[in-house]
Amino acid sequence: MNKKLRIGVIGAGRIGKLHSANLVNRVPNAELAAISDVYEPAAKELAEKLGVANYYSDYRKILEDPTIDAVFICSSTDTHSPISIEAAKAGKHIFCEKPIDHDLDVIKTVLDEVKKAGVKYQVGFNRRFDRNFKHVHDVVANGGIGDVQIVKVTSRDPEAPPISYVKVSGGIFVDMTIHDFDMVRYLSGSEVVEVSAMGACLVNPDIAKEGDVDTCIITMRFANGALGVIDNSRQAVYGYDQRIEVFGSKGCITADNETANNTTLYTVDGVTKEKPLWFFLERYNDAFIAEECAFVDACLNDTDTAVGAFDGLQPVLIGLAAKESCEKGGIPVKVQK
Amino acid sequence: MNKKLRIGVIGAGRIGKLHSANLVNRVPNAELAAISDVYEPAAKELAEKLGVANYYSDYRKILEDPTIDAVFICSSTDTHSPISIEAAKAGKHIFCEKPIDHDLDVIKTVLDEVKKAGVKYQVGFNRRFDRNFKHVHDVVANGGIGDVQIVKVTSRDPEAPPISYVKVSGGIFVDMTIHDFDMVRYLSGSEVVEVSAMGACLVNPDIAKEGDVDTCIITMRFANGALGVIDNSRQAVYGYDQRIEVFGSKGCITADNETANNTTLYTVDGVTKEKPLWFFLERYNDAFIAEECAFVDACLNDTDTAVGAFDGLQPVLIGLAAKESCEKGGIPVKVQK
Amino acid sequence: MNKKLRIGVIGAGRIGKLHSANLVNRVPNAELAAISDVYEPAAKELAEKLGVANYYSDYRKILEDPTIDAVFICSSTDTHSPISIEAAKAGKHIFCEKPIDHDLDVIKTVLDEVKKAGVKYQVGFNRRFDRNFKHVHDVVANGGIGDVQIVKVTSRDPEAPPISYVKVSGGIFVDMTIHDFDMVRYLSGSEVVEVSAMGACLVNPDIAKEGDVDTCIITMRFANGALGVIDNSRQAVYGYDQRIEVFGSKGCITADNETANNTTLYTVDGVTKEKPLWFFLERYNDAFIAEECAFVDACLNDTDTAVGAFDGLQPVLIGLAAKESCEKGGIPVKVQK
Amino acid sequence: MNKKLRIGVIGAGRIGKLHSANLVNRVPNAELAAISDVYEPAAKELAEKLGVANYYSDYRKILEDPTIDAVFICSSTDTHSPISIEAAKAGKHIFCEKPIDHDLDVIKTVLDEVKKAGVKYQVGFNRRFDRNFKHVHDVVANGGIGDVQIVKVTSRDPEAPPISYVKVSGGIFVDMTIHDFDMVRYLSGSEVVEVSAMGACLVNPDIAKEGDVDTCIITMRFANGALGVIDNSRQAVYGYDQRIEVFGSKGCITADNETANNTTLYTVDGVTKEKPLWFFLERYNDAFIAEECAFVDACLNDTDTAVGAFDGLQPVLIGLAAKESCEKGGIPVKVQK
Repeated sequence: MNKKLRIGVIGAGRIGKLHSANLVNRVPNAELAAISDVYEPAAKELAEKLGVANYYSDYRKILEDPTIDAVFICSSTDTHSPISIEAAKAGKHIFCEKPIDHDLDVIKTVLDEVKKAGVKYQVGFNRRFDRNFKHVHDVVANGGIGDVQIVKVTSRDPEAPPISYVKVSGGIFVDMTIHDFDMVRYLSGSEVVEVSAMGACLVNPDIAKEGDVDTCIITMRFANGALGVIDNSRQAVYGYDQRIEVFGSKGCITADNETANNTTLYTVDGVTKEKPLWFFLERYNDAFIAEECAFVDACLNDTDTAVGAFDGLQPVLIGLAAKESCEKGGIPVKVQK
Repeated sequence: MNKKLRIGVIGAGRIGKLHSANLVNRVPNAELAAISDVYEPAAKELAEKLGVANYYSDYRKILEDPTIDAVFICSSTDTHSPISIEAAKAGKHIFCEKPIDHDLDVIKTVLDEVKKAGVKYQVGFNRRFDRNFKHVHDVVANGGIGDVQIVKVTSRDPEAPPISYVKVSGGIFVDMTIHDFDMVRYLSGSEVVEVSAMGACLVNPDIAKEGDVDTCIITMRFANGALGVIDNSRQAVYGYDQRIEVFGSKGCITADNETANNTTLYTVDGVTKEKPLWFFLERYNDAFIAEECAFVDACLNDTDTAVGAFDGLQPVLIGLAAKESCEKGGIPVKVQK
Repeated sequence: MNKKLRIGVIGAGRIGKLHSANLVNRVPNAELAAISDVYEPAAKELAEKLGVANYYSDYRKILEDPTIDAVFICSSTDTHSPISIEAAKAGKHIFCEKPIDHDLDVIKTVLDEVKKAGVKYQVGFNRRFDRNFKHVHDVVANGGIGDVQIVKVTSRDPEAPPISYVKVSGGIFVDMTIHDFDMVRYLSGSEVVEVSAMGACLVNPDIAKEGDVDTCIITMRFANGALGVIDNSRQAVYGYDQRIEVFGSKGCITADNETANNTTLYTVDGVTKEKPLWFFLERYNDAFIAEECAFVDACLNDTDTAVGAFDGLQPVLIGLAAKESCEKGGIPVKVQK
Repeated sequence: MNKKLRIGVIGAGRIGKLHSANLVNRVPNAELAAISDVYEPAAKELAEKLGVANYYSDYRKILEDPTIDAVFICSSTDTHSPISIEAAKAGKHIFCEKPIDHDLDVIKTVLDEVKKAGVKYQVGFNRRFDRNFKHVHDVVANGGIGDVQIVKVTSRDPEAPPISYVKVSGGIFVDMTIHDFDMVRYLSGSEVVEVSAMGACLVNPDIAKEGDVDTCIITMRFANGALGVIDNSRQAVYGYDQRIEVFGSKGCITADNETANNTTLYTVDGVTKEKPLWFFLERYNDAFIAEECAFVDACLNDTDTAVGAFDGLQPVLIGLAAKESCEKGGIPVKVQK
């Protein structure tokens, strides 16, 4: 049997539970050694359910455990950067949920510390590991559609978040579109240099009261000359709508939504197929497992992670530019370098 | 047998030939009485091929013929407005190919003369008559997807036009995107109030030398609050790519490309379906017939035409705003009223 | 203008009306000269509606008219063969609706007379002219899937016919499946040598009282060694279900149903596409026009018709074998030569 | 943590490896305690790779281990029934790969012993657990298409097996079609009463020398009056072709092939989608996991297994009838009760 990577998960909320269960049941080379959560009963309950030996309220217990090789930072967003820095100093490899931070200087400090410590760092942009999106990326990267000219992302959530979440989210561009900004970088193989965003509040007027929008179209220009466009809505009543398209000098490639099954029902009422999967946990289930396996393998084999610290920074930069553009009524804004 | 509408076709070029053949073979209530072309042999050849009695080099012969009820203006773009005015004064109903003109004042003069003469006026926005797009429109108009929030149009030509054409086209926004501007008005049921356009020259660098772009993304805000986006390319090597999508509070509806047949071939090389139809004459063949029938019926039954003079003006206004936005690097521009 | 083929249509019922309207409006090289129907007012009404000069109660008037080149026999099934013989003797080219007859000796007599007279003879197997099925045929014939191994036809009517029709139909195998027998011959490029049919009465028990079935599966062996299967139902509540598949040593090709449009609607209730077109007049509309054009062209250019008299005979032979097999509980029956 | 089911896997060949890896990595409530194989190095290698404590050459060591609750019988077909009997006598729950046996009396003895011992028995008809086929089953069972009238199964292997395998396979009907016979029972909710099979040898003439066919169409009549049809080929060059369709009084439902991803590539060469997954291990990967989980849960919760001993017997009975029919040239044969 191969050596396993001993991992501690920090944060036992929704995403922490997801990673923990996968690390136990679906990632062959991982060994989940400990779980921490500021609310200790949550850590305890999860550890017992999954047969994990140790649980703590203080994540420092994990950082202090010399048998632990790596951490998954799944705690609240504001703790991502400080824990990243501490974990790097403790010599742990780091898988960090997005975003690293909303403050660019802080992100850069994290990057510096990670570099100094020589640990692996992977940001949770799970969609890159979706079988469909990855195939599109690979075809594009291999020249299958020639030079990239237009990148399109449709990305719509099934339900708007509660206003309490909107208040602390940093706004749609750094909270939701950040995944799409990562996707356009991944697909185009080029950096976004300029962004123009047009937004509206069409789903829930209370979102406007928080100074945010719930519907938007973001146009981008890439360093390689290509153009890109993302459309977002906080609420697609038919499910989680996640489609991409890359158009180039030699063709075009698209990826469609995933569904619970591929059946077709014919009745007097019409010809019906399944709706897109409803929630990101279902939609990207296999993608989460793939990103976890990739991280574990990168640590065990000492190779680069698939989505490094630089990749964690860029979408935040683009998101801040988009936010500024939208607030200024769509004026194009350069992305900070 | 019903009364037929006696029609004269002005201009025997590509689009004049198309309308003439359809009027003879596919529009039951039409009678093609005469064809004119400044190059008389072209008019003669077409008339003889189709069994049409009269042909002229001077379109005024058609306007002077009291037995003729209506004209199809298929001559060069710069003649659309003067012939429209003359035809209106001669009391003929008018079907005019797009665009009416590039000059807003001239268009308004045409509209005035048409109104004064009390004749029917229909602009050749044939795509409204495409079975797929019309169905999308009808579902949206009937509330099938609730309030419209996002309108998306993908519109890519199979081949870039020759530079000689680009020089006189007025630019991509008033030449090519004009059809898409009509489409977003048709689908959204609302007027475009603001436009932002990002363009690039990725297909043929000679197009840039003419001050034009060949690839662009245009974002729009509608009077009803919805957002819209069009992406254009002058060259999609796999065919004429024409797709639409309307997203709203209760759902989403899409229309796909048309193909020569619906077969699927499975071999060791993959699973292959037909490419989009290559050219607009094939793709919109049935739509051309439908618009011709609609015009003929509106004249015979004295009802409003489906695409009136006002509908001919709006896309030009939007196109000019898009052109300005693109030239200014994507700054949003209000559409003139 | 090209010479036109002057045609008389015999029978002004459903299929006679269809052919007449197409010949007038959609077949450029045809001239509909006369219509006859035993019920003269039907002939009169149709002639007036379409602007056809002559109408008669007696089809012999058409046969006696020396200016008429060809006839379309659209009268009741029992008259197909006698009128075919008379028309051949009168030197008219013949387009005859299927089936020529239910009696093999009679069919052979018709074939002899047609041969003797040297006139064109085309049987109304319109489905061969469907764009999808024709493409499948062409790919198969060109070796696109290698050697044919399995031919599959799904063919289901939207509604069962009235019992009065069932009584005189000759049974499902010679009435409905006959089209599918023609299709398997067309697709396989080989003759059916043996048939086994399993039937049931699941739609309407009254059909069983007439000694017929309404649901059946027919298995076939072809002269070239391939196998075939057809499934039929008299009632598919979701529309006219017409799909084919040919499987071979190098691949497989399928053709799907035709729909009113290609839109997709996403709502909370599911993802919905259009149902198959409901009725054969809509489904095969373009195929009817194509077969009419092909017949007219064959007559004008003196070439072979696409579906000759021999092609009219074979499906009847297969149908009779299938009927015998079904009545004997599925015992394989050789097809008579 | 829940109690886990301690399992021994008997046979470390292709299917034994598959089940072992899944039991270790993908079935949360299973604990793989031991592996046996007559060739001990195979058992050893697999056990070491998966971190399993015990391995043996003699499966009796597994049956004698009182800590083991259940066995997976993955050894050669001829050992399925004797080991089933021994395992039942040893009080172990049994998951047995298909077929139980080719001899009906032997199968019945197995069934008796299982019943006497009161142990769980599940047969490896994994396709029932495919997400698509299960959904079709559920819709049909819930009346979503009304009364079942026609059941269709397309089932084609990507490559013909070696002749050495064909010799011992028992013939296509009990080796390959047996899965499809299980599927039609599962989908129709009714028993097959009569079978007619037409076969041919079109893929590899050496298969004919063994008295077998490689291409066949099997028609069935069900106890509830419905009809069914299966088409099989030993070689579909484009991949593992596995599709189903159930047609009924209120509609029709189909399930399509599974592919590696859902992307679509548009180039000058055509519009291409992914081929069906190539091999059963990929195609039914999730179905294998689901059947393993279902078995484990049935044992732990003392509920009925999803595919019991009776379900193991029926497809063999149908297969033997189909074989007889095919050998007799397609004469319908009653299925033995």
